Amino acid sequence: MRKFNKQELIQSMDGALKLRGKINEIIDPLFNKGISNICWLGIGGTYASGMQANIHMKEKSALETFYQNAAEYIVTGNKRITDKTLVIISSVTGNTKEMVEAVKKLNEVGTTILGFMDDPKAKLVSSLTYCISYPENEQLKFFMVGDRLMYLNGEFPDYEDFYQQMEQYFAQDIAEVSVKADAFAKDFAQKHHDDAIHYFVGAGNQWGATYSYAMCYWEEQHWLKTRAVEAAEFFHGMFEIIDRDTPVTVYVGEDSQRPLSERVAHFLPEICGNYTIIDAKDYDLPGISEKYRGTLSPFVFHAINNRIDIHIEHLNRHPMDIRRYYRALDY
Amino acid sequence: MRKFNKQELIQSMDGALKLRGKINEIIDPLFNKGISNICWLGIGGTYASGMQANIHMKEKSALETFYQNAAEYIVTGNKRITDKTLVIISSVTGNTKEMVEAVKKLNEVGTTILGFMDDPKAKLVSSLTYCISYPENEQLKFFMVGDRLMYLNGEFPDYEDFYQQMEQYFAQDIAEVSVKADAFAKDFAQKHHDDAIHYFVGAGNQWGATYSYAMCYWEEQHWLKTRAVEAAEFFHGMFEIIDRDTPVTVYVGEDSQRPLSERVAHFLPEICGNYTIIDAKDYDLPGISEKYRGTLSPFVFHAINNRIDIHIEHLNRHPMDIRRYYRALDY
Repeated sequence: MRKFNKQELIQSMDGALKLRGKINEIIDPLFNKGISNICWLGIGGTYASGMQANIHMKEKSALETFYQNAAEYIVTGNKRITDKTLVIISSVTGNTKEMVEAVKKLNEVGTTILGFMDDPKAKLVSSLTYCISYPENEQLKFFMVGDRLMYLNGEFPDYEDFYQQMEQYFAQDIAEVSVKADAFAKDFAQKHHDDAIHYFVGAGNQWGATYSYAMCYWEEQHWLKTRAVEAAEFFHGMFEIIDRDTPVTVYVGEDSQRPLSERVAHFLPEICGNYTIIDAKDYDLPGISEKYRGTLSPFVFHAINNRIDIHIEHLNRHPMDIRRYYRALDY
Repeated sequence: MRKFNKQELIQSMDGALKLRGKINEIIDPLFNKGISNICWLGIGGTYASGMQANIHMKEKSALETFYQNAAEYIVTGNKRITDKTLVIISSVTGNTKEMVEAVKKLNEVGTTILGFMDDPKAKLVSSLTYCISYPENEQLKFFMVGDRLMYLNGEFPDYEDFYQQMEQYFAQDIAEVSVKADAFAKDFAQKHHDDAIHYFVGAGNQWGATYSYAMCYWEEQHWLKTRAVEAAEFFHGMFEIIDRDTPVTVYVGEDSQRPLSERVAHFLPEICGNYTIIDAKDYDLPGISEKYRGTLSPFVFHAINNRIDIHIEHLNRHPMDIRRYYRALDY
């Protein structure tokens, strides 16, 4: 398999799961002291991860939770964010301009900020209330925070059982998804690596990831045009431009919004001959109970998408690290 | 001017403004009794209007307000929506499948629902707590609700002054924007009526409208491909696909998020030779104070967009009422 190191992948995910102790040490006293609401603040990819964490919590929780774009926060503010708010952020470099400014503003408000920084020396670290440094696995980190909050709020009684399964099987299972998906991913890349525009449809805890995959991978890293659409919105305007040859990919996850994606997947073949349905159900996750699979769909899709990227990168002879504008020009 | 009846347009907007008395008769006792939060529920175009109303309130308000997709609500629910929530909806026909089901679920929760129905005989009417029937002007109706809530919450002291100006000048001013914009709109349509894909960038109270204009007008009614992007997100991936010939339109409004759109408008000419900047500032609104113009930017853009549509419709000889799939097939 091209650019695949199974052991490294497993270690990375297992290491992320081991952050749970640290996370809980931070979250438990905060929750017990009392927080009024939870804000996932980000921009670009981390904004998208916030969308996912937010929907993940909405599945079960009555806590007030919302996501907030960092750039919007700088100019418009958000009066729901107070010194009783828990803000969660994530950053690879810790020097994204909008994030630095937004955190400065949050500090003025006196908000509690938990930041996941890939780089322990990131500029932002000193402005955070709590910092956990570990590379990648953003969604997993966010879900662990959300899950703990819901557990403490009495909304996730299976919490211990779920994480016992996660620690035992998750990393291995997701690595196996990568292996299983590779042949499909290669075919998919072959078929779509030169698309004039590609449509991605997602719902629920996969919507943020769909938004981000279309924008941060195909647009930013492959320089391929895309349009992401929420499955529920597909039928409200957007589908009128689809015809026989329009390339459309639908992610069908196993969370509560599965029926919304299924509706698209069922109808699409009637009007389109160039569609792909990627269904999380087609991938085994041995050791994980059926009832937890919905939460894990984004990780299944993430593994599949990574394999697609590796093949597109090679077919297009376009190394994914190239940027023509991002952090290359002043803007 | 093609398909333009100034008097009809003015009457329509003035009539909408006259709904304010009815709106306040409903909102005032509700607010005084106590509501826990405000939910803008919709799908497609009405979902987008909810985004706008939500951002409009965030400019000033500490009230908990959020928008909710109707289809998502049916499958995932939302535990923040309780019998203390005020839900605001709008519907032209009142028979949109997802809206009918979502309202049924809201009724089970015992939520207060204020619905604006274009058709007074709409199926939904009997399921609403309060119904106001009047055609079109959805955004104006939503803003009047939001403004009253903020006024009652002590966050909009200029409320009376603002609406005094609105009643005196708004309809006439917006009609004049249509007249002024027509020549530009005709040129724009000429240039872009056959685009392979068109990019629309918007921010703040224009973001929902940008999302909806791209989807509900260009995709749904002109069958032209589009991708709408939030100005803040433009720099986080999406802009890597823009080159000399990519058609991009940026809406620069006058609300608090103006700097986000301005940032795109300033940078775009460096990488793109096929851009259009539409700036609300270029349009006079006689009688309206400078400080209120930010709220009115979406109405300015709406008037301009309507003129663009009328010219594209004619150039493409594609009547905007044609749908190939929407409500034409089962899905």
